Amino acid sequence: MEMESKLVAHPRQSGRVSVENLPPSMIRKLANPSRGLNDVIPLWFGEPDRPTPEFICEAAIDSLKAGHTFYKPNLGIEPLRVALADYTNGLYETRFGPENIVVTNSGLVALGLASQCVVNEGDTVVTHAPMWPNLPAIQEVLGAQVVRVPLEMRSGAWRLDLDRLFAACTPETTMMMINSPSNPTGWMLNDVEQQAILDFCRHRGLWLIADEVYNRLVYDAPRAPSFSGKINDDDKVLLVNSFSKTWAMTGWRLGWLTIPKSMEKTFEMLVEYNFSCVPEPTQRAGIVAARDGEQFVSESVARYRQARDCLLEHLANFPRVTCVRPESTFYSWLSLDGMTDSYAFAEQAIHEAKVGMAPGIAFGPEGEGHLRICFAVDTDLIEQAIDRLGPMLR
Amino acid sequence: MEMESKLVAHPRQSGRVSVENLPPSMIRKLANPSRGLNDVIPLWFGEPDRPTPEFICEAAIDSLKAGHTFYKPNLGIEPLRVALADYTNGLYETRFGPENIVVTNSGLVALGLASQCVVNEGDTVVTHAPMWPNLPAIQEVLGAQVVRVPLEMRSGAWRLDLDRLFAACTPETTMMMINSPSNPTGWMLNDVEQQAILDFCRHRGLWLIADEVYNRLVYDAPRAPSFSGKINDDDKVLLVNSFSKTWAMTGWRLGWLTIPKSMEKTFEMLVEYNFSCVPEPTQRAGIVAARDGEQFVSESVARYRQARDCLLEHLANFPRVTCVRPESTFYSWLSLDGMTDSYAFAEQAIHEAKVGMAPGIAFGPEGEGHLRICFAVDTDLIEQAIDRLGPMLR
Repeated sequence: MEMESKLVAHPRQSGRVSVENLPPSMIRKLANPSRGLNDVIPLWFGEPDRPTPEFICEAAIDSLKAGHTFYKPNLGIEPLRVALADYTNGLYETRFGPENIVVTNSGLVALGLASQCVVNEGDTVVTHAPMWPNLPAIQEVLGAQVVRVPLEMRSGAWRLDLDRLFAACTPETTMMMINSPSNPTGWMLNDVEQQAILDFCRHRGLWLIADEVYNRLVYDAPRAPSFSGKINDDDKVLLVNSFSKTWAMTGWRLGWLTIPKSMEKTFEMLVEYNFSCVPEPTQRAGIVAARDGEQFVSESVARYRQARDCLLEHLANFPRVTCVRPESTFYSWLSLDGMTDSYAFAEQAIHEAKVGMAPGIAFGPEGEGHLRICFAVDTDLIEQAIDRLGPMLR
Repeated sequence: MEMESKLVAHPRQSGRVSVENLPPSMIRKLANPSRGLNDVIPLWFGEPDRPTPEFICEAAIDSLKAGHTFYKPNLGIEPLRVALADYTNGLYETRFGPENIVVTNSGLVALGLASQCVVNEGDTVVTHAPMWPNLPAIQEVLGAQVVRVPLEMRSGAWRLDLDRLFAACTPETTMMMINSPSNPTGWMLNDVEQQAILDFCRHRGLWLIADEVYNRLVYDAPRAPSFSGKINDDDKVLLVNSFSKTWAMTGWRLGWLTIPKSMEKTFEMLVEYNFSCVPEPTQRAGIVAARDGEQFVSESVARYRQARDCLLEHLANFPRVTCVRPESTFYSWLSLDGMTDSYAFAEQAIHEAKVGMAPGIAFGPEGEGHLRICFAVDTDLIEQAIDRLGPMLR
């Protein structure tokens, strides 16, 4: 009978995080006011500085010209599902078929679908931290509690203590969520650790969602260790990947899930009620990327390696800065002695140094005291950024 | 401690519909085995037969060529938000600004976002029926109970009894969901009825989600009545629209929400955690469609009107068929005397008559005994379809 004067989303009565209580994306919050300012060097977002290669764009253009503007099957067009199975099989000596592949309109959406499938209100999800904030947020919106096991710095490298990870799993735990290679730290699991995690999940009947979107941005191997090569079709494992980072396609919103064959029908329905299908021109571009994109991947990684080494070399001049050489991703995750408010520092850096960085706190409380720099840019821009940041890092 | 031999999604303990219990899309279930068969006349899906007009595709092609392949703001690029506000203001003499617009990757996703925002587990949502199955499914996945008030046939026209609609609202009801013009019936609310519904929702403090994606496919007016022109910025109303039907863009996955300004931040977060952003080339195409697409809309409607009249003229030859002349949408919703299993009938029609139609049961139990024919095709195809269906309709 009342007129409400202030419009708020319906307050949650249940365990789910209410929409208003969702944590805002602190990277976007920081960056939005400065969007389009040409004088800020943008190292905050996780995306390459160069547009998608032309040969990939051409495939979408050809598809548009051919009039591919109709609804498509929920799980993706067959040639893309085949191309993605082939791509994975080529990388990891696996034997996936198109029926293991679900095409989604981004890795983020793939994560959301996978989570909808296995996470319930009241569940506990165990994961590591610091972490890309959207991963835990998706679980919290579904009403799950997220238990975060912090990475530890051991002998100058990040490491996840598996005993701590396993000890964090209680009878209420239904799922483990792993992001390796990891945003923001650039840390990754090795094959032995992955096998141990898989064995533990099998033993305890836990679901495992693994976000492997950085699996090609690796500096000492052609690809990161993946759960792909370790699982069989009875495993409760859902693998998330994306075209965004590997083929510089962030803006396309194209990703995929690798699922057990027996869940094909379940995901068909989930896609139907979530987003229906992915545009065909986007999928045609995806086929070309997965099939013909290897040279681009190697060239990109070589370029990012150069940028990484340049950045680390310059950061070494600042005694207050501690920074592990990342073995994967295009992020440098640095800590600055004496810095206790990363958001304030990052904001100050925009205004005083004209450099945009992601504040560590954006990746959870474990990230405080840190900054994330995306080094997927030319080395002269990195030199310019460090030059500008100099007075603040000293 | 157990290994599960059969992989099923995590069973819901709560009131939410478990993923395995989701109703399959019966249109897709029926059509999928016959996809690509050239000898079936496809009148089952709700999409125009012609691809998106070239001038719209060109905008996306130009955007791809310009390298617009990066992340974009959550709520949409400013020129598209402006274009959509202008478009609505031009149609309905409203005064929306870009801050009222949220760009989404489909009308379906817009519905999902709006529902996430206002629907809670245990809520009751009141709506009408028969209805596009995805609309209630979205609510059920969120744990809401959907109460369906059936349309009634009065003096040869569909009608929603508003007294029955209002009587269906209990203290547990938090939201009303309206789809006018309506899929599958082609029925629509008039302005007086819309005002009465809005007044009722205001009085009771209910949210109103209105799916208006068919608002331009109207045969006796340039646009359907809309809640747009009746609401003010204090109203708990979320309007859903899409580029799919109006500009023949089903495969693009582009839609939008019209929201109260005060909810901009809430939707910014919802988009961030759901799909992040819509591809820029798609948004650029959307600008051109909304700004320069009026001639295409009039030509399409003229063509669909001709197809509708052709279809009805031919159906009139079959005494068993009852069919209202739809005043909107591109669907004919017909009942066939003596037909009690629309799914079996539609399946038989594929095999015996080589004509694909949507079975009425796909739109809920209220739809049984009916068939939906999408008449967005050339008249010679309609004549051919009726010719083939003849023996089954006699």
